[in-house]
This record gives sequence, structure tokens and C-alpha cells, in this order.
Amino acid sequence: MSAETAAGPVASGPVPGALPIALDALGGDLGAAPNVEGAVQAARAGVPVLLVGERTRLHAELGRHTGSAGLPIEVIDAPDVIGMDEHASDVRGRPEASINVCTRLVKEGRAAAAVSMGHSGATMASALLTLGRIRGVDRPAILTHLPAQGGFTTLLDVGANADVKAAYLAQWARLATVYLRVLEGQENPTVGLLSIGEEDHKGSALVLEAHALLRELHGLGHGQGINFYGNVEGNDIFKRTTDIVVTDGFTGNVVLKLAEGEAKVLLGWVKEALSSDLRSKLGGLLVRTRLRGLAERLDPGTYGGSVLLGVRGLTFIGHGKSDARAVKNAVLRAARAHEAQLVPRLEAAFGAS
Amino acid sequence: MSAETAAGPVASGPVPGALPIALDALGGDLGAAPNVEGAVQAARAGVPVLLVGERTRLHAELGRHTGSAGLPIEVIDAPDVIGMDEHASDVRGRPEASINVCTRLVKEGRAAAAVSMGHSGATMASALLTLGRIRGVDRPAILTHLPAQGGFTTLLDVGANADVKAAYLAQWARLATVYLRVLEGQENPTVGLLSIGEEDHKGSALVLEAHALLRELHGLGHGQGINFYGNVEGNDIFKRTTDIVVTDGFTGNVVLKLAEGEAKVLLGWVKEALSSDLRSKLGGLLVRTRLRGLAERLDPGTYGGSVLLGVRGLTFIGHGKSDARAVKNAVLRAARAHEAQLVPRLEAAFGAS
Repeated sequence: MSAETAAGPVASGPVPGALPIALDALGGDLGAAPNVEGAVQAARAGVPVLLVGERTRLHAELGRHTGSAGLPIEVIDAPDVIGMDEHASDVRGRPEASINVCTRLVKEGRAAAAVSMGHSGATMASALLTLGRIRGVDRPAILTHLPAQGGFTTLLDVGANADVKAAYLAQWARLATVYLRVLEGQENPTVGLLSIGEEDHKGSALVLEAHALLRELHGLGHGQGINFYGNVEGNDIFKRTTDIVVTDGFTGNVVLKLAEGEAKVLLGWVKEALSSDLRSKLGGLLVRTRLRGLAERLDPGTYGGSVLLGVRGLTFIGHGKSDARAVKNAVLRAARAHEAQLVPRLEAAFGAS
Repeated sequence: MSAETAAGPVASGPVPGALPIALDALGGDLGAAPNVEGAVQAARAGVPVLLVGERTRLHAELGRHTGSAGLPIEVIDAPDVIGMDEHASDVRGRPEASINVCTRLVKEGRAAAAVSMGHSGATMASALLTLGRIRGVDRPAILTHLPAQGGFTTLLDVGANADVKAAYLAQWARLATVYLRVLEGQENPTVGLLSIGEEDHKGSALVLEAHALLRELHGLGHGQGINFYGNVEGNDIFKRTTDIVVTDGFTGNVVLKLAEGEAKVLLGWVKEALSSDLRSKLGGLLVRTRLRGLAERLDPGTYGGSVLLGVRGLTFIGHGKSDARAVKNAVLRAARAHEAQLVPRLEAAFGAS
């Protein structure tokens, strides 16, 4: 193991199930440690991983995991990295940047997917430049999952496009529908359009136009159609009124960060309340395990990161503060998306239009 | 007491402190009961109230409160009411609709403020039509408070304007600054512009333009200037990174409803976790009182509703599901805004421009 190129035995064959996941191994706020540990966990679960980044650092980090030598993990040297404070457009002139190496491995069929906890703008830019768009998709969108009553709500776009057109929202509704069908086995997921009133006539000019387009898509054939519920409001996201909520990348990003931020603050208040006096402290001790389960449910890492939908290749974007568990979940989700042939199925759905 | 007109002793004098609050007494999802009970509580706290609505129903409801006869409460008959399912524009042709009677009482100087838990669009429309805009304000905005770390965050617009211009955001930042100065004694509150990245160059086209305007306002004289912090993100709202967060009415409304909806679902999960087994149930019993305090902190009614800023008269808009406590808090807040001369001080600030 630990070959310095991707030409090792793992990546040599075209067998889809055995293709490794290319992990941008120095990406994210926490550096190599959680990425490498997450890769080790994913490899132990049977998913081969290409660790892309500065060779010596990655080997050193790998060396800290005893027993990792027998795992399907390779290191691919990429001396350059796009820092969190650099511009997304910097990916253009830097072919050796780790994220560019990851997306190129996908493009060349040597990796099943690119996964990065690093600069999300750079990851998007690299995927777009290297992999290109699915025919019929004007703009790729970032899809994510939020914990909600009885499961999770699928939300997109959460940040790829701050300014959008109504047609994008309609395309994203179709992409997300196929995504849930392929990855979650939901045959006919419901789609809600985020607005500021349930009534059809309420909302911004953009929402009114998108509403009409989504209404048209509702009831088309299984390949192209969506199951449009109508407008939903902010409170419907946690109520899980619909399986999918579609919105522009500005509102979606605010929603995602607000939801995560509020969960954090509220759980902090609950903990505070449970240690405010002796009686509460005793009660807090008794309920500790249950609250830990709740905290895990609210952890963004539980859902395996976000996926960039609409590019011709699998690209997963994780939280900058992802721990090893979140990295592992993202890698496993990427492998599952590859096995389920997500990209070909998205292309087929749009090819029918 | 119970005079049928507003020409009673309470409303006859121009003494600001003694002017009653006009309450749209049948407004809201729960009808007369919480409005009348809230009015009784406010009157007991020393704030005179005009109950505006269908006379017989209001007298009947008032009759259920023993001891209310001696309180400074009058009933003003308004046979018509704008239903929750009617259009906001319906206020135009219906002068006897309760919300129109309320705003007219303010316009005529017979009430200090209009307060409604009813149709918020109709309340806005009525206030705009009857009271007009403050000079220099293009569009009024709805300002509200969200619970946050160590206090609350002031957010606007939360729904009056789905489509906006950058100049509106700059005006709202000034309105909110004066509001917090006058009502909360915060001399120099910080203003954040809601965006999808802290960096100045990130955000939608609208945000980039608004950022430049807010930057200009920063550092002007005390009368016109604002204390601009820069861009903030969704997670900054509960962290209380800034005192004020300014955004368009679409995003703000989504934020408000998401925040309320998430708090509700999360508290439900905490309660569920505390009753999942015997051990947790026992713990739950011990922490019950503390959690009740937390639930109250998260209750939108705690903050006394929202205020429509930018019209020439005080107008408060409450949650449709407001209980008596929320109604009382909104009435008390309205009285405080009147005593503090909020509208004249807003006019003075804009007059200086």
C-alpha cells in the first residue's frame, strides 16, 4: 500500500464497486488528522480511499494509525493546496492543488468521487472546470440534509448560487428528486418551494415564477416529473412537511447556518439548565445518555456532508470543522452514490427532456 | 367604563402617558379570548386599552373577567374584520374593519399605538394607508427579536418586503439603530448585514450593493450614522455577533419561521429524550422547572411581538397564535415605545438627512 500514484491495483480496473474515493486529505479547518482517521475508518468499512495531499504529511499521519498498512488506502502526492482564505477562482491556474487532483482522478475514471472538507467554493469551481455540467443543468447546486421530525429534510441550494433564475430552481427540484430516488429509495419524494406564505400568490417575484415552473413539472412522466407540494415556509423544514425543499443558494445557505447555529446554542442552553443547581445536576446526570443521542442527531456530520448536484462526476463537500466520523460518513455516502450510479441516472433523467 | 366611543375620559387629553393602546381585539387565530385577557393584564399593569371589535362579543368576553370593570379598558365597536384568509388589499374599501379603526385612532391622536395579532399583511396595509411613511423611508419594515446568547438579536425585515432594493436595507439599519437606542438604551448598537460569507466580497448582488451603502453610513454623525460590523451569517443570529441583523423581507421571514419552528421541534426532542425510559423520566422530573424557563425564553410572545418601523405612528404586529401573555407584552411594549417617543425620534433622525 501507500503507492505514490493512483496507478496501483485498486485504481487500475474499471470495476465500479472497487473504485476508490479521492479525499482532499488536508482540506478543512482541522488539517490532516480527521481526514486520515476518517479514511482509515472508511477503509475498515470496505471503501478504498485515495488520500490526496502533501505526501510526507499524509504518510506521517497514516503512520499514527497502527494496522492501517493492510487497508485499501493510497497516498497521491499533491504539493499544492487552496487555503481557506484564498479565492475560489484560484483553482484555475493551479493544476497541482489537491482539490484539482481529486476532481481529475474522477474525470479520468480513477476515482469514484471527490470528497473535500476544504474550501467549498474552490471545490465547486474545480468540479465545474474539470468535470463540467450535466446536459440540461444550467447551474450545479449544493444539496444537504437537515435533521427534521421523523427523519431529515433535503435542502438545496445551500450556497453554490447566491443569485439565481427560476429555471435553476426547477432543475434542482428534478435533480433532488432523482437523488432521493436513487440514494434513499424514495420513489416519489415531495418537493416544497421555500416561500413566505403557503398561498400560491405569496412570495418574491422569483418564487412566483419558480412556482409556475414547478407546477408544470408536477405530473409529467416518472422520468422528468416531480411531486410538487406547493410553497412551504421556514417552519416546515424541521416539521418535514416535504421531503425536499428547494430555494436559492443565498436563502439556503442562511437556513443551513442558522439551523446549525441554533441547534448548538439551544443544546448549550439545555445543558446550562441541567447544571444550574443540585437538583438539576442530578437530573442532568440521569438524562445524559439520551441527550448525547440528541446531540448526535443534530450533528451535521451525521448526514455525510453535502453533494454538488449537476456536475458530471460525484463531488461531496463536507463541513470545514468535520471530525473523523463526518469524514468517514461522507466517504461512505460517496461510495454509495457511485454504486447506485447516481450521475448516470441523473444524466438519463435530464437526457429524456 | 365600556364607553362605546373613544371619546371617553381616557382618550380626551393630549397627555402622552395616558393615551390608550388600540388593540385589534378579534385579531389572531384564537379570537377574542387571549386579546381580552391580555388587555386586562395590561390594564392591571397600568396601561389603558381600547378594545376594538364587535361590541357584543367583546363585552361578553370582558364580562368573564371579574374585577375588570374598574380597569382603564374601553370597547370601540368595529363590526367588520379582515379574516386571515382575505387579501391584505381588502383594507382599502372597508373603513369599519377593526384594524382600520385601530390605525385611525392612532392617526387622530386618540390612541398611542395600534396592536394586532391578526392578518399581518392587512395590518401593514392599513398602517401604510392611514398613517403614511416617515419622510426618507421608502418602505416600512417589520422588526422583531429573536432569543440569542446573552439576550436577543434584533432582526428586520421579517416579511413586509419580499423584493427589496439595497437602499431599503440601509434605511432599515438606521431605523433599527434608533429603535434600540430609544427602547433598549443601547447607544451604539452594532449592525450586521446577513450574507453567506463574512468576507466583504461574498453574497448576492443585493448584499454587495447594500454592504457599500452600510459602509458609507458607518461613521456618520450620531444622528444618521450606524455602527456597521460587516457581513454576518446565519449562525451569527443565535450567537448574537451583532445587536441588529438587517436583511430582505423574504430571507428575514424564512429566518424567523425557521428559528421558531426549530426551537419547537428541538424542545420536543428534548422532552421526548426525557421520557424515553424510567431513568430519563426521573431525571426529567428533576429538571422540569428549568426546562420550562428555557421554553419561555424561546416563546416568541416573550418579546412582545414585532413593530412596523417606518410608518408615522406606532404599529405592533403579534403572532397569530399569541396567548394572553404575548398580547399583554405587545401592549406594554407599545406603551413604552410611545412614552419613549419612538416615532418623533425616528422622524428627527431621518429629518436630519
